[in-house]
Amino acid sequence: MGPHPAVADVRRAVREALADVQKDALILTACSGGADSLALAAALAFVAPRLRLRAGLLTVDHQLQEGSRQRAETVAALGTDLGLTPSEVLTVTVGGEGGPEAAAREARYAALSEAADRHGAEAVLLGHTRDDQAETVLLGLARGSGPRSLSGMAATTGRYRRPLLHLPRATTVAACRAQNLDLWDDPHNADPRYTRVRVRHKILPLLEQELGPGVIEALARTAALAREDADALDEWADSAYQHSVRGDLGESVTLAVAELEKLPDAVRRRVLRRAAIAAGSPSGVLSATHVRALDRLVTHWHGQKAVNLPGGRSAVRRRGVLVIASDPTA
Amino acid sequence: MGPHPAVADVRRAVREALADVQKDALILTACSGGADSLALAAALAFVAPRLRLRAGLLTVDHQLQEGSRQRAETVAALGTDLGLTPSEVLTVTVGGEGGPEAAAREARYAALSEAADRHGAEAVLLGHTRDDQAETVLLGLARGSGPRSLSGMAATTGRYRRPLLHLPRATTVAACRAQNLDLWDDPHNADPRYTRVRVRHKILPLLEQELGPGVIEALARTAALAREDADALDEWADSAYQHSVRGDLGESVTLAVAELEKLPDAVRRRVLRRAAIAAGSPSGVLSATHVRALDRLVTHWHGQKAVNLPGGRSAVRRRGVLVIASDPTA
Repeated sequence: MGPHPAVADVRRAVREALADVQKDALILTACSGGADSLALAAALAFVAPRLRLRAGLLTVDHQLQEGSRQRAETVAALGTDLGLTPSEVLTVTVGGEGGPEAAAREARYAALSEAADRHGAEAVLLGHTRDDQAETVLLGLARGSGPRSLSGMAATTGRYRRPLLHLPRATTVAACRAQNLDLWDDPHNADPRYTRVRVRHKILPLLEQELGPGVIEALARTAALAREDADALDEWADSAYQHSVRGDLGESVTLAVAELEKLPDAVRRRVLRRAAIAAGSPSGVLSATHVRALDRLVTHWHGQKAVNLPGGRSAVRRRGVLVIASDPTA
Repeated sequence: MGPHPAVADVRRAVREALADVQKDALILTACSGGADSLALAAALAFVAPRLRLRAGLLTVDHQLQEGSRQRAETVAALGTDLGLTPSEVLTVTVGGEGGPEAAAREARYAALSEAADRHGAEAVLLGHTRDDQAETVLLGLARGSGPRSLSGMAATTGRYRRPLLHLPRATTVAACRAQNLDLWDDPHNADPRYTRVRVRHKILPLLEQELGPGVIEALARTAALAREDADALDEWADSAYQHSVRGDLGESVTLAVAELEKLPDAVRRRVLRRAAIAAGSPSGVLSATHVRALDRLVTHWHGQKAVNLPGGRSAVRRRGVLVIASDPTA
């Protein structure tokens, strides 16, 4: 008799995610003790020896809750039981910048990256599921910053891999049950002060109820398609930027208006955004409104004055070129 | 004292939407008697003479509710009072195909187009607001068919124009109140059997409550950005198709694999979809799964057999080309 179907699904996902890894490489898996990352850790422990890979576990103690240290040690001990070596607790101190979720995430990834370097790991696996992806898409949608923000999480980002991104959370829960793995429900996952928690417990259930049970899968599919589209448009914008640029002196960028005029809106705005950043305008505060104002110098030219951009930069159009610099009229 | 701010907003939106129209042209506006289209009709009546345009009103009697004829005649009479000529009731018979919403929409647009032709109208205005746009984005999201389905409604589609697409519904309601216009609430707009009604009355209010009041604007912004992106990628796919095609005999399309391999995923899949349709596979049933199978002939080639497509077409790869036809091995 083979393994439970959910266990088989998680193992297959891990095997496929590691198909390109060289023999003897070390793969680490991040584990909180929740269903997703626990099912992932168990699958890695099973799959790694069969692929002739070494496998270990990292668990992060965020020091945000009473008993978090003990909790992390229990997870690390479970990793050791599963045969994962190293099986290590990473203790972090969470700052306050950008809200509690963002601060915890930043501290966690810093610790995981440091540990991956220290152990010489080839890849770090993360337990995000299709449900997490759907939540991320909805959060991106609420920001309204366009297709890039809808594209959710990538299956691979640098050394991080997300083998379970196409599997429902229910599969990881079933896989843990079938293997008698003792789940831990992070109380943060039920704290309605977190936007993501409200998305998970209120918004997604209502969407499923009113629009049908396929909505989570549809959101995840949207993410994949939006990511492909955004990648292709970035590629086009890269090449269009090279074609349009007449001078890029670090602090001052000059673009040929005639080249910009040939481009479709979506590409031209990406090129203008890129040019503003190349000229020193900070990407974090450069808004769609700024880019639209720049764009009007190309598409609605009637002798406008300089367009001011964040970081003390501004843009002027003159004699067929757009100049973005600290003092573009100089 | 100027007009109420909401009235001014609606008038400005109509003026901007008609800025490119030649003097003396006839503009018709579709009006159900609800807040959106009533505010639009009143604004058109005000703006048109100032732009030296002629303006009329069309209202559709769907014959789906008791008293619908009388209702439509009241709207037409209101149009006449506003000085709109013609002010006409279009009576339609709604079929059953594709569900009640789709059938009513199809009958409505057929009647509007016929009337626009008959009167020689330059444009037909529709009262869709930013709230309608947000609803459309959510409905597209639930389908999960990617960025094109997120791009909502266009500000202009052929002769149809949607001047209010950036205004909240609350503005049209306020504009009607300020002008003492007697609103009619279509009972269909409260019937929870319609998916759009559930989106409007259950899902959007919850999203606003949990994610913040900016979410409707964010959804509308997403639509605009997704539309630009989809347009740009379609343009790229057009030109990539021309570069890749080695033969297009109507029923049989041949593509150069080496050209396809150069393209990013998002563009290559659009080219393959286009090729399958050009070879006679019906677009309505050609799914993302079919396109992915075609794509694997390019990206994961290991001597696969023919890929079957809807409409009795299939695709094979041989000697550096992909052939899509009824009998591609012939």
